[in-house]
Amino acid sequence: MKFSFKNDYSEGCHLNILTALLNHNSDQQAGYGEDQYSLEAKNLIRQKIKSDSDIYFVSGGTQANLLVISSILKPYQCVISAATGHILNNETGAIEATGHKILSIDKEDGKLTPEDIIPVLENHKNIPHQVMPKLVYVSNSTELGTVYTLTELEKLSAFCKENHLYIFMDGARMGHGLTAEISDLTLEKVAQLTDVFYLGGTKNGALIGEAIVINNNELRQDFAFNIKQRGALLAKGRLLGIQFLELMKEDLYFELAAHANRQAMKIKKALKERGAKFLSDTYTNQIFPILSNSLIEKLSEKFEFYVWKKIDDDFSAIRIITSWNTADEPVDEFIEIINNEI
Amino acid sequence: MKFSFKNDYSEGCHLNILTALLNHNSDQQAGYGEDQYSLEAKNLIRQKIKSDSDIYFVSGGTQANLLVISSILKPYQCVISAATGHILNNETGAIEATGHKILSIDKEDGKLTPEDIIPVLENHKNIPHQVMPKLVYVSNSTELGTVYTLTELEKLSAFCKENHLYIFMDGARMGHGLTAEISDLTLEKVAQLTDVFYLGGTKNGALIGEAIVINNNELRQDFAFNIKQRGALLAKGRLLGIQFLELMKEDLYFELAAHANRQAMKIKKALKERGAKFLSDTYTNQIFPILSNSLIEKLSEKFEFYVWKKIDDDFSAIRIITSWNTADEPVDEFIEIINNEI
Amino acid sequence: MKFSFKNDYSEGCHLNILTALLNHNSDQQAGYGEDQYSLEAKNLIRQKIKSDSDIYFVSGGTQANLLVISSILKPYQCVISAATGHILNNETGAIEATGHKILSIDKEDGKLTPEDIIPVLENHKNIPHQVMPKLVYVSNSTELGTVYTLTELEKLSAFCKENHLYIFMDGARMGHGLTAEISDLTLEKVAQLTDVFYLGGTKNGALIGEAIVINNNELRQDFAFNIKQRGALLAKGRLLGIQFLELMKEDLYFELAAHANRQAMKIKKALKERGAKFLSDTYTNQIFPILSNSLIEKLSEKFEFYVWKKIDDDFSAIRIITSWNTADEPVDEFIEIINNEI
Amino acid sequence: MKFSFKNDYSEGCHLNILTALLNHNSDQQAGYGEDQYSLEAKNLIRQKIKSDSDIYFVSGGTQANLLVISSILKPYQCVISAATGHILNNETGAIEATGHKILSIDKEDGKLTPEDIIPVLENHKNIPHQVMPKLVYVSNSTELGTVYTLTELEKLSAFCKENHLYIFMDGARMGHGLTAEISDLTLEKVAQLTDVFYLGGTKNGALIGEAIVINNNELRQDFAFNIKQRGALLAKGRLLGIQFLELMKEDLYFELAAHANRQAMKIKKALKERGAKFLSDTYTNQIFPILSNSLIEKLSEKFEFYVWKKIDDDFSAIRIITSWNTADEPVDEFIEIINNEI
Repeated sequence: MKFSFKNDYSEGCHLNILTALLNHNSDQQAGYGEDQYSLEAKNLIRQKIKSDSDIYFVSGGTQANLLVISSILKPYQCVISAATGHILNNETGAIEATGHKILSIDKEDGKLTPEDIIPVLENHKNIPHQVMPKLVYVSNSTELGTVYTLTELEKLSAFCKENHLYIFMDGARMGHGLTAEISDLTLEKVAQLTDVFYLGGTKNGALIGEAIVINNNELRQDFAFNIKQRGALLAKGRLLGIQFLELMKEDLYFELAAHANRQAMKIKKALKERGAKFLSDTYTNQIFPILSNSLIEKLSEKFEFYVWKKIDDDFSAIRIITSWNTADEPVDEFIEIINNEI
Repeated sequence: MKFSFKNDYSEGCHLNILTALLNHNSDQQAGYGEDQYSLEAKNLIRQKIKSDSDIYFVSGGTQANLLVISSILKPYQCVISAATGHILNNETGAIEATGHKILSIDKEDGKLTPEDIIPVLENHKNIPHQVMPKLVYVSNSTELGTVYTLTELEKLSAFCKENHLYIFMDGARMGHGLTAEISDLTLEKVAQLTDVFYLGGTKNGALIGEAIVINNNELRQDFAFNIKQRGALLAKGRLLGIQFLELMKEDLYFELAAHANRQAMKIKKALKERGAKFLSDTYTNQIFPILSNSLIEKLSEKFEFYVWKKIDDDFSAIRIITSWNTADEPVDEFIEIINNEI
Repeated sequence: MKFSFKNDYSEGCHLNILTALLNHNSDQQAGYGEDQYSLEAKNLIRQKIKSDSDIYFVSGGTQANLLVISSILKPYQCVISAATGHILNNETGAIEATGHKILSIDKEDGKLTPEDIIPVLENHKNIPHQVMPKLVYVSNSTELGTVYTLTELEKLSAFCKENHLYIFMDGARMGHGLTAEISDLTLEKVAQLTDVFYLGGTKNGALIGEAIVINNNELRQDFAFNIKQRGALLAKGRLLGIQFLELMKEDLYFELAAHANRQAMKIKKALKERGAKFLSDTYTNQIFPILSNSLIEKLSEKFEFYVWKKIDDDFSAIRIITSWNTADEPVDEFIEIINNEI
Repeated sequence: MKFSFKNDYSEGCHLNILTALLNHNSDQQAGYGEDQYSLEAKNLIRQKIKSDSDIYFVSGGTQANLLVISSILKPYQCVISAATGHILNNETGAIEATGHKILSIDKEDGKLTPEDIIPVLENHKNIPHQVMPKLVYVSNSTELGTVYTLTELEKLSAFCKENHLYIFMDGARMGHGLTAEISDLTLEKVAQLTDVFYLGGTKNGALIGEAIVINNNELRQDFAFNIKQRGALLAKGRLLGIQFLELMKEDLYFELAAHANRQAMKIKKALKERGAKFLSDTYTNQIFPILSNSLIEKLSEKFEFYVWKKIDDDFSAIRIITSWNTADEPVDEFIEIINNEI
């Protein structure tokens, strides 16, 4: 069996979660997110962000995205997203299926700035013949593994406020984004600078679960109805509550993400030392090294990963993703092959 | 802490499931339902129904209902349901949110017959000014705890076929329906007599999970797209696969449901012996006894349950639900109070 | 060729409209409702209702209904309507197609009262598992030809305000409702007592056209976007503007409706004098007399109309609709047959 | 009052239409498109295309587009369009509001070829995480005034067939496209080479009205339900029937479009003789000449038109649209100014 670097959801969950599920298994709890674990987990998150935001746990990222966006927007309003946005490429039209257009902006690094958005607003002034841009969707870390700095997010957030745009941060990999060595952003700041964001559990040690955090008061009303209506309200909400309770205790969430980042950075460092180039300069658990096809073939004998992009006849970029659970052995073995071959 | 008879999703899950989650936790598996556990679990179900039906696991009942219905119907087609149908009353308009009307038929026992449906078809012939009835939604066991017999389902199924209607069975409590002492229906027969059905895990010992089974060939194409688009595709599909694998092995699924039914029937028997009446004559894990308000108050000191309906100034109907995990102690204690008080 | 009493949209339009279309045909005008005729027609309506309401012209009643309702409601909110409501029976699920459930209330006269609505609100308190009732839909005149009195509408309107419900009046036959001999309601009062209503042109002398009038400030924002998005914004808005300008000038609109009502009342009077009974006691342009099948057959030789309902083996109710264009001759001839036969 | 070259829907309609409306005004006709004029008009169209296609009249282009697309596609299927497509830019997200994504392809001339579509198909193979491309949307004449040749449409049509894609032609300006001097396409060929198309009346001499023509048998079933459900079914369908009957008689439709084209070509010729350049080389009723800002200012004193695009500090492109009703006088006067100024 080859070791897989294909994604960060190949394994089960952190053992603390399974232990907690076992310990609390016979408790009788209220359903639909009213269990005590969910309530406690929400309080832990509120403490971390120093805000009384409304919090809801749902099972996955596409679900979180479609719930938040369809709940915020009026029928004629639309989303602005980088062209690399998960909602544009990997969600089978889930946002459009709720009736909303996504306007796409090409960006090499997958990050949006006010300068990117200004022309989109300029080009949407033929009222009422065009959709109204209303929500800016950003991911952190992005789909390319890059991260927003505090200054970048502050500028973007201020711009959105001035232009009556909401800002929503997809945090499927929020832990990885915030614990990247070059990140100066904190969860507390994210809560201050966005209208809504979510904390991804699925890609960071949970079995399932994303925590939607609604900071903007205007957007809080009646959100629970949307969750139920879209089929996203689990009868046994305890499954989500127990997981986030464990992840939030003693910052396990951030430790797991930092671990994943470290493992990727070890590989990155080894490759750099051997002179390899990268598609983009990332500091989270995704790296995109450009390797010779013969090396890729060699690595493929022991590891699974995606060949991301053909560069020329001899070289291709591959994607390596590490996870909360990636042990040292496969990383070391991967590096060893590199060192032997380059 | 009072013991709760409020529903069948108050506790965690069967221990076999937690053990299996633990045993398989460090395996690397393909995501999105392509893991080996999901594949094995689907094969077990196919063996039980003796059919090569397409099978998909999703997290909950409302999700299963809206996925199946929105996937089958064209925009102008609608659903026929008993007025007690879960989709009509307890899903926050989830079906209408996908664009489809539900036509409601009043039925005391929550079960539909061809005779109920004929006038609905008659009243929808003003083409194209009315929706086109196309799918009959039935639940087994029903929301009232009643069950379909083989003959009843055969008649309904034949009627639907003649009238070009699809028949979809909501099996959130399929286990309870099929293991009711008065039921002569089997899962194999359900598969033969419906176009689509689902097997509910959430209310029968799983943490989450319903298995959608698509029997009709016409309806199979591209269903996976819908699951992803509605945000119902779990990255760690293993969570669903492992659970259904455990439930399907050695018929644990049916044993758990039969246990829940037995516990409810014990209480029913005790009440009957004391002369109590019931709102409806049920044989599954839901009973609706009519009790004096003083007895209800007495029982409320030790137990939680819903007061369902006021009968007169002195009597009300309550709803008692037992589960796969309801031990003998609370049942015996409940019966003892009854015996002392009536 | 038989004369048709089947509906009030069998003929073209009032000649003033065709004359105006001809007179203004070669003018160049701005598109999409910004033409001078539309602006003038809106001002005339505003003068009549003594309110600065927002006004939009669209082509038909189903379009007006779906636009207003989908624009007002959030995804989880629903409509309350009498079971006879046009939106429930004759619009091919147009409202549900925009994602919203309609809760139906059985009423013999097709009119809603606060007492009808209270239990619906009571039965929708299981948050968030049920849709949230938010908009009350009423028709005047109703689909059964009945009308709201001032007092009735005042009570209903006050109740809605107290309960945070919007009230929307379908006025496909508003002219007929307000000019009914027993009506003490005025257009000005309708504007004061509803959040939104519309004035139907199609059934009262126009080729197409309904004037949506938005009285509630909260609901005015960005409505034009919805019109465009639903495909309801005509490039040549002049077609709607010119028609409503003609209809509103010197109250032609109300004269046409009063004429239609008078013709129906003549037939009603004749039938009453001969002892005929009616399905409901109406005072607008729809009557539902109960006649012997032999008389119905006799009348069918010269006239077209719908046989509405079988009463017994010998008698049926028919529906007779008169229009703005129904001349005296067919009415007199119809009455003569009755007088000869009964 | 300045003469407007801003669009082709500034005036009323061809006088034949008003005359026919007047002549038939007092006829009693069946509603909802079952009138004799609609039936006759449909037969005339069928004769012209030599096909028994299903035909429906609706009021406008956005309505036609959203009806056709939402009727053809399953929820997870999407549209492919040139970036200039009307559905992408000028319909307020009408297509997305029905749940479907549009994939955009940048093309300078607004026309799609198989080579444009191949990479889109290649990039949408990550099943089920991406939408499924299923319908190719083309306009003729395009939004830029360009036209498809027979060979181009034949290639595109064959490619679509091979790849199981439907092809839908937006014919809001079909008349102009087919009567362009460089066009070798006929309406009969359009019917053979597309699954669905529509003939635009609004921009070619009608008050309102587009004729949707469904050629592919698979797509015909139950289309009328969609029309009603989307609020697009006019009670007085006669208004549409009478107009198309007049336009189709003796090819008035094509004469009107040819006239509009000729008037634009006169201006184009005059400009070319004076050495003017154009944004694109068009042969229909839209031209985009690049003029000096001083000339534009001069022309603006007597004419209205859109300044389309700044070229440099001294020059801009303007858009001139002529219509079925553009007389010689304004065209000659416009040319005279040009000749005096350049």
